[in-house]
Amino acid sequence: MQASAIIIRQPREEDVPAIVAMFASDAIGGHGDTTDPSALADYIAAFRRIGASPNETLYVVERDGEVVGTFQTVVTTALTGRGSSSMIVEAVHTRADCRGQGIGEAMIRFCLGEAERTGMRLVQLTSNLARKDAHRFYERLGFTPSHLGFKFKLK
Amino acid sequence: MQASAIIIRQPREEDVPAIVAMFASDAIGGHGDTTDPSALADYIAAFRRIGASPNETLYVVERDGEVVGTFQTVVTTALTGRGSSSMIVEAVHTRADCRGQGIGEAMIRFCLGEAERTGMRLVQLTSNLARKDAHRFYERLGFTPSHLGFKFKLK
Repeated sequence: MQASAIIIRQPREEDVPAIVAMFASDAIGGHGDTTDPSALADYIAAFRRIGASPNETLYVVERDGEVVGTFQTVVTTALTGRGSSSMIVEAVHTRADCRGQGIGEAMIRFCLGEAERTGMRLVQLTSNLARKDAHRFYERLGFTPSHLGFKFKLK
Repeated sequence: MQASAIIIRQPREEDVPAIVAMFASDAIGGHGDTTDPSALADYIAAFRRIGASPNETLYVVERDGEVVGTFQTVVTTALTGRGSSSMIVEAVHTRADCRGQGIGEAMIRFCLGEAERTGMRLVQLTSNLARKDAHRFYERLGFTPSHLGFKFKLK
């Protein structure tokens, strides 16, 4: 049997609950995500803000008609690096029951390809210190763990 | 004698060489920055791209009429964290001969204040693993070193 093809595309509003379900099932992030229907309006509002932003793009990975992964890219320009632009990859998530099937690799290779195509100087991301498997994964794909990532939670 | 006041403001185009000089004198970043006049057009182009971006803001710190620090903020929205927005702080730099005078702290406290005022969920940044002093500094200000930062250089 041939493996099902995966499609990487921008989500529609009706995909939002499936994306949220992936975040809500994540034990490490601790972002307080929930599939409680009362929270849906917040997620939809954020979905629309991302859609309206010229340099942020949300993606989903679809396989057999189901959402099995998600990630987001943010393009930023800085004066460092001779005024170059970079891609930040955020909120990378593969559905828990679909891990180890190449979905994460497809997402990151997609980002690298898009970054190269659009002339970015680098692709950067941060990964929670507890996600040791993810660190090995990013290093295998050619990323260098050169930085420490700091967060200051305001709420 | 009273300490000179510092002003945090958005830069004008004529401030760009002073900003670039700070990056060019940085031995750790390795971003290939240079004060060579042939590179100025690249920096000016990037300065204008940042100025045109609705969610990126470049700042300088001015003291006694001189640029003594710089940083940049990027506001991003994600579905994680119940659809919240975060501030990413990038390219934080204090002029080498002005360190240890509270300029870095003023910059970061400004970011935290702006992030709180505009309802951000968190402020995040990455710092090169070699910058041990910076790590202590961010922890002292209340940041948690919870992530590993990965980069993939494309050029």
